[in-house]
Amino acid sequence: MASDMDGQAGWKLRQTPNTLAKSTQNKNSDEDNFDFRVIKSETTTDYAQLDLFHRAASPIMLLGQCFAIMPLTGIRKASPRHVHFRFKSVPMIVTVIFMMASSVLTLSMLKFLLNIGVTAKNFVGQVFFTCVQCACILFIDLARRWPPLIRYWTRLELIFTKAPYEVLNRSLSQRVRQPALIIIALSLVEHSLYLASAIVSYKQRVKYCTQNYNSTMDVSFDGYVKLNYDYVFILLPYTRFLGVYVLVVNGTCTFIWNYMDLFIMMISRGLAYRFEQISKRIRRLEHEDRVPETTFMEIREHYVRMCELLERVDNALSSIILLSCANNLYFVCCQLLNIFNKLRWPINYVYFWYSMLYLVGRTACVFLTAATINDESKSALSVLRRVSSKNWCVEVERLIFQMSTQTVALSGKKFYFLTRRLLFGMAGTIVTYELVLLQFDEPNRRKGLLPLCA
Amino acid sequence: MASDMDGQAGWKLRQTPNTLAKSTQNKNSDEDNFDFRVIKSETTTDYAQLDLFHRAASPIMLLGQCFAIMPLTGIRKASPRHVHFRFKSVPMIVTVIFMMASSVLTLSMLKFLLNIGVTAKNFVGQVFFTCVQCACILFIDLARRWPPLIRYWTRLELIFTKAPYEVLNRSLSQRVRQPALIIIALSLVEHSLYLASAIVSYKQRVKYCTQNYNSTMDVSFDGYVKLNYDYVFILLPYTRFLGVYVLVVNGTCTFIWNYMDLFIMMISRGLAYRFEQISKRIRRLEHEDRVPETTFMEIREHYVRMCELLERVDNALSSIILLSCANNLYFVCCQLLNIFNKLRWPINYVYFWYSMLYLVGRTACVFLTAATINDESKSALSVLRRVSSKNWCVEVERLIFQMSTQTVALSGKKFYFLTRRLLFGMAGTIVTYELVLLQFDEPNRRKGLLPLCA
Amino acid sequence: MASDMDGQAGWKLRQTPNTLAKSTQNKNSDEDNFDFRVIKSETTTDYAQLDLFHRAASPIMLLGQCFAIMPLTGIRKASPRHVHFRFKSVPMIVTVIFMMASSVLTLSMLKFLLNIGVTAKNFVGQVFFTCVQCACILFIDLARRWPPLIRYWTRLELIFTKAPYEVLNRSLSQRVRQPALIIIALSLVEHSLYLASAIVSYKQRVKYCTQNYNSTMDVSFDGYVKLNYDYVFILLPYTRFLGVYVLVVNGTCTFIWNYMDLFIMMISRGLAYRFEQISKRIRRLEHEDRVPETTFMEIREHYVRMCELLERVDNALSSIILLSCANNLYFVCCQLLNIFNKLRWPINYVYFWYSMLYLVGRTACVFLTAATINDESKSALSVLRRVSSKNWCVEVERLIFQMSTQTVALSGKKFYFLTRRLLFGMAGTIVTYELVLLQFDEPNRRKGLLPLCA
Amino acid sequence: MASDMDGQAGWKLRQTPNTLAKSTQNKNSDEDNFDFRVIKSETTTDYAQLDLFHRAASPIMLLGQCFAIMPLTGIRKASPRHVHFRFKSVPMIVTVIFMMASSVLTLSMLKFLLNIGVTAKNFVGQVFFTCVQCACILFIDLARRWPPLIRYWTRLELIFTKAPYEVLNRSLSQRVRQPALIIIALSLVEHSLYLASAIVSYKQRVKYCTQNYNSTMDVSFDGYVKLNYDYVFILLPYTRFLGVYVLVVNGTCTFIWNYMDLFIMMISRGLAYRFEQISKRIRRLEHEDRVPETTFMEIREHYVRMCELLERVDNALSSIILLSCANNLYFVCCQLLNIFNKLRWPINYVYFWYSMLYLVGRTACVFLTAATINDESKSALSVLRRVSSKNWCVEVERLIFQMSTQTVALSGKKFYFLTRRLLFGMAGTIVTYELVLLQFDEPNRRKGLLPLCA
Repeated sequence: MASDMDGQAGWKLRQTPNTLAKSTQNKNSDEDNFDFRVIKSETTTDYAQLDLFHRAASPIMLLGQCFAIMPLTGIRKASPRHVHFRFKSVPMIVTVIFMMASSVLTLSMLKFLLNIGVTAKNFVGQVFFTCVQCACILFIDLARRWPPLIRYWTRLELIFTKAPYEVLNRSLSQRVRQPALIIIALSLVEHSLYLASAIVSYKQRVKYCTQNYNSTMDVSFDGYVKLNYDYVFILLPYTRFLGVYVLVVNGTCTFIWNYMDLFIMMISRGLAYRFEQISKRIRRLEHEDRVPETTFMEIREHYVRMCELLERVDNALSSIILLSCANNLYFVCCQLLNIFNKLRWPINYVYFWYSMLYLVGRTACVFLTAATINDESKSALSVLRRVSSKNWCVEVERLIFQMSTQTVALSGKKFYFLTRRLLFGMAGTIVTYELVLLQFDEPNRRKGLLPLCA
Repeated sequence: MASDMDGQAGWKLRQTPNTLAKSTQNKNSDEDNFDFRVIKSETTTDYAQLDLFHRAASPIMLLGQCFAIMPLTGIRKASPRHVHFRFKSVPMIVTVIFMMASSVLTLSMLKFLLNIGVTAKNFVGQVFFTCVQCACILFIDLARRWPPLIRYWTRLELIFTKAPYEVLNRSLSQRVRQPALIIIALSLVEHSLYLASAIVSYKQRVKYCTQNYNSTMDVSFDGYVKLNYDYVFILLPYTRFLGVYVLVVNGTCTFIWNYMDLFIMMISRGLAYRFEQISKRIRRLEHEDRVPETTFMEIREHYVRMCELLERVDNALSSIILLSCANNLYFVCCQLLNIFNKLRWPINYVYFWYSMLYLVGRTACVFLTAATINDESKSALSVLRRVSSKNWCVEVERLIFQMSTQTVALSGKKFYFLTRRLLFGMAGTIVTYELVLLQFDEPNRRKGLLPLCA
Repeated sequence: MASDMDGQAGWKLRQTPNTLAKSTQNKNSDEDNFDFRVIKSETTTDYAQLDLFHRAASPIMLLGQCFAIMPLTGIRKASPRHVHFRFKSVPMIVTVIFMMASSVLTLSMLKFLLNIGVTAKNFVGQVFFTCVQCACILFIDLARRWPPLIRYWTRLELIFTKAPYEVLNRSLSQRVRQPALIIIALSLVEHSLYLASAIVSYKQRVKYCTQNYNSTMDVSFDGYVKLNYDYVFILLPYTRFLGVYVLVVNGTCTFIWNYMDLFIMMISRGLAYRFEQISKRIRRLEHEDRVPETTFMEIREHYVRMCELLERVDNALSSIILLSCANNLYFVCCQLLNIFNKLRWPINYVYFWYSMLYLVGRTACVFLTAATINDESKSALSVLRRVSSKNWCVEVERLIFQMSTQTVALSGKKFYFLTRRLLFGMAGTIVTYELVLLQFDEPNRRKGLLPLCA
Repeated sequence: MASDMDGQAGWKLRQTPNTLAKSTQNKNSDEDNFDFRVIKSETTTDYAQLDLFHRAASPIMLLGQCFAIMPLTGIRKASPRHVHFRFKSVPMIVTVIFMMASSVLTLSMLKFLLNIGVTAKNFVGQVFFTCVQCACILFIDLARRWPPLIRYWTRLELIFTKAPYEVLNRSLSQRVRQPALIIIALSLVEHSLYLASAIVSYKQRVKYCTQNYNSTMDVSFDGYVKLNYDYVFILLPYTRFLGVYVLVVNGTCTFIWNYMDLFIMMISRGLAYRFEQISKRIRRLEHEDRVPETTFMEIREHYVRMCELLERVDNALSSIILLSCANNLYFVCCQLLNIFNKLRWPINYVYFWYSMLYLVGRTACVFLTAATINDESKSALSVLRRVSSKNWCVEVERLIFQMSTQTVALSGKKFYFLTRRLLFGMAGTIVTYELVLLQFDEPNRRKGLLPLCA
């Protein structure tokens, strides 16, 4: 709560610039280096007109709030100064309700597993629910840090909305929203296929068992839910309301599970865009005969500021990145293991292959999108290396040194940095794991399909 | 198509240097930094006399065109300004026809596999055909980017054909063509052995089965083709024309499969040669008492330009590099796995061992040749470190810093850089994979040979 | 012994500063660069008032001495000048007695193992005892080097107890003692659970066997000890005194086994604190308009000195770090392997899971705590990169270069450095080992529990 | 041959310094930067008095010549100008004879293996002989390059035999010869134990078989040789001369197999010594108030020269390093695999454990000794970082930059550098291999001992 208040205070300060000179010593270290020009322009800025990350991300974040993620108020407003985190707010209540609702499923599954014995196969569901629960908690933590962060981010972005920085060929809003929309669309298809696969399997099973074993099962909503979510109804008695509730919670969990990756991609796009703008500005200098040192000084200052912003975002986000990576690696390994398994109905194959390709694709996309920050941060190096002796100055030297030696990238709690090289290393590791696991799993695979009606 | 046009425009510009001054602001960033001297000399240059990459590579590229690779027009001409990519051209038509022809084989094999069930063993053929199809597409994409690239490359190379740069002890043409000719020769031997092995196996089998099982098979071309390419004739009825067609397409596929590696080696040799020239020039400076800063400035500029060229080539080529590496690693792992398998006839052993050694050798050669770029780019470092205080200047410092911190090498889509260290890491990884796979494959290996006549 | 004397001499020198000027040439290289101001202040310093590492660590080190670790005299005194290592001293005698006592257990277990045949399972105990013995020896070696080291450390720390360095939000004493107390508390719980698990198992077994097999065993202290430490009583006849002796030695071994990790954490906290103070001082400079070069010169000097201290500490400590890492990795792998094993009584599960989580947690904590040194040493980089052109000077450049290129971290004999990235790599390696080992161990796991009464 | 002549010419040049000025432009790049002072002193130097690598290594190299390694003439002479490589010389003839003699064993074993079928177990002998043969060829190649190399080395070493460089606490000769003598002593013990183990096994077997199976074998030299080297006597008829011949060749092979590692250690010690001298000189400067830039210039020049020498040595030696590493890793893996095997007689256990520990120890020693070059080359960094602003100059900056960014170490054909970190990575890889292999080998291990008399 404290850091939120801080952020607010910092923001109000901007509105009364005449008090700035005196209070410099008491402020946060990262807020007092803005010069006056920026602050003045800010007070009169019409945020709705500018291509800022806050504006670009807000529809996606609003959608997230519908699914109990990022409980913030005032996201719809154009200016980030209205964004607040409050424990007593509608989004927070939604989040808490969902967490309680989903923990029922998580706990019932845990009890179910402890009863029948944990194996590598039936553990997947538990991991899924635990992961979603963790994501919820981490997003609440992120929401707590978000208001000061987005204000800092927005103030910094104002620099890049004016000359000499250009708007790139696709605007920030487009870039930020595009991966989000694609992921949402693909995940909807995935969830529909999951439902289709489950329903068809259920119907076929009922049909087959009634024909062959004279069992008197009936195709019904209740039967479907009872069969597929049996672990819940060991703990609780079945009612139709509970059936709907389970389906809804399950769907929401799937959404959140996808939202983690989507969110990382949005942030990455937002940061990479600014680094690209800096690179583009540097690239334009190439054609100028004589570049004053002050220009390089300004560019370097903006570059350093962007690195600092990245650092702050990374501090707030890297728990989610760590969770997302671990989650993705686990599910990719699991899905790849099932690649040689026999399935009963064609729709199962359709779902399995779509789901696997979607998962691998999404994982690769998150890594690659996050790695663009690193790529963009270094892309101006080749131009800077061509700076002629005439224009060479200590500022260019410092900029080159920083670009060469600093790893500018999002990280998983600083354990690893999301760069293209990491992806290569991970691919090698996954192949090793997969080979060992395939060998491990072979006895199970050889057994084939279990009898349908037992 | 747009980039091609761009390149052309840039080229024509060079022919009318008097319009240059005005149009500077509208040009591509990489074309306007050439000084006049270069451009003038270029208009009067007799390309046929110079040791340029375009000249060195053109016979090999022409050969490639005979096998439906790199559909460009005007490759035979001495000057790269005549090189064009057009969708409506003879080479492009050849390529499209081949791709359709080979896709028949690919699809029929796919259908065959889905029928009998995919295993690690029978998957090899599918990977081979898919790989060749991908290579075709990637080479079309490369052809599209080739005309502007080779023009840029040639213009840059003109610098290195004049003093103070020397011709190295073996000319560029020799160096570029040598690996190509060796690979072609060895791959011809490989393909011949493959045919010999298949034919002998077929004959022996017919002989053995007629003797022992009274089957009335006859040694014939038709029988040979039907046995070895059975997957095609499940989809299509057998005719002698189709038999020949299958053999031809198969041979062409093998050529393309080798051509990928060959092409990477040619490019690597071409780039490494120029870096070696720079290193040699720097090495000669060592004996001079007093080197003016302008000399180092010029060297550094040329070095940076070469790095940029490498960057451009890498952008165009790295998809092919990625495919080639994945392809080579897969086949090396497969072949090494078969090392303990029992074969029926001596000729099978001859073919298997030749094929395996050829494959491992080719893979190592591609990596090592590509790594020479990295080696050569750093080879002048030791001389630059000896530059005395007298001659020390900011340009030398910048050059040393760049050489020390930048990874100058071809890459696989920037996921990894082709350096000598990579090869070491890969060798370690392959051994791990191999050990796990050998263990995996043991039950199959123990079964031994299947009955010959079934 | 020589180095101890050296240290003492160096220390006495400080008390007679008037002889300093003359003897400069004869001194140790690391002691003659202190300026006079520091030395004078030192002679009049009341160490008890200052927040020094020696003061912070002494209670924990005294506790260690009770368990035969770090045989030094004079640890209780406020000033490190009273710390000495003597072969003829009470702590040293305690250590030697313990080592002899524990070697009885080690040797009897070794004999036992050679008799029944070593397997991966029964090897654990041997590793445990050998590890503790090695730790004792390495701590004696460390104790020998400790007096000069702690004096050097303390002298250096005096710089950081005065302005412009601030006390951080939690004092050094708190930070150093906190992990020690937590580890001790958790390890006490672990050992209690171990005893509880062993005793309950023993009681249940007696009960079960008397009921079912009419054996006339009795629940008694003697029976418990004989059953659980059978390997000792093959070599020696059982007496009650020997039984107590075995339990005490076992408990002490467990303490030492934990103390290694605890000690590394204490040292890490102590060093990281000082680096954090430097970072904080640099961060405060950010708000100043004009920073004189002498300030940066001083900061850089202190930074370099801290790096030297780290180097010295690393030289003395890295054998213990290597042992601790190897030990932790081995036990983590072993415990993870047992995760799917069936156990007989609930208390066994409680103990197993607590023990495993404690072990993994402790290992992670040691690595992460040690990695904070590396994190803190680089944390000021972002501020230094923002130093404006006005304040830029060669000293800042040197400081940035050093921070960027030097790996400031504790190491395992320089084979590896304890950084966050190492932890990531190790996690990946452990997973690989675990997957292979699980597969290896499966036949044993399938056998299930052995008959209880044999 | 050409390079040898070159070296000679360069050397003679030194004897007639009056012709030097004119011929500067025609000389080898690495010989013309020596200043006059050095050359003059050289002509009057009494090499026998100086602590040079050539002097230190010559007894060990002479010993090697007795075992057909390094066929050079004039090694016994104090001055390296008498060292020559000639195809027509006694050592070369010895080498050729040995190579022919050993190739008989290699080929007979190859034939034997192809007859009975290659397995992982019986392949070890083949690897051993092939490795020794390769080592012979590589040492001949090294001998060809040795004369110019040792002259260059010696000329460079003259710098370090005079002030301001000090003799370190243990002289170069001691340091170079010490590991050689230790390896030779330990390898003699190893070979004796091998013989003892083989002889005892043979005797016990004869005794056991005559007692139990009434076979009429006799303990005799002939029987021993026939049993242990059966693969030779399949190809050749047994004679007592041939028996002795086989034993002698086998012993020589073992010597060469050890000599490779020994030689790498000698070279490493020789190079590391000089880097240590440089470090020590830098460390002494720390106490000086004012160091002139020329001092740093000189130090840097010597450092760069040493790096160049290392580069040259590495070029000549790295094939042997690659072979030695591959060889050591293979044998370590093999021996570790046999760790759980049952053996028949106690002497077999003694030999196996001694041999394994010796092998692991030797491998670790080679890596660690080679890594000291890297350690020593960086050891002065901490002192250079403390150079005060007063003494700071561009030469110090360059020296720090070079030490920080360059990997100064012997390499395996540049695929990897022999540093302490490499050893850590290799250890991890070996453990992975071992775990997979152990699992692989389990069925064989379970079979136990084969019947003794068959």
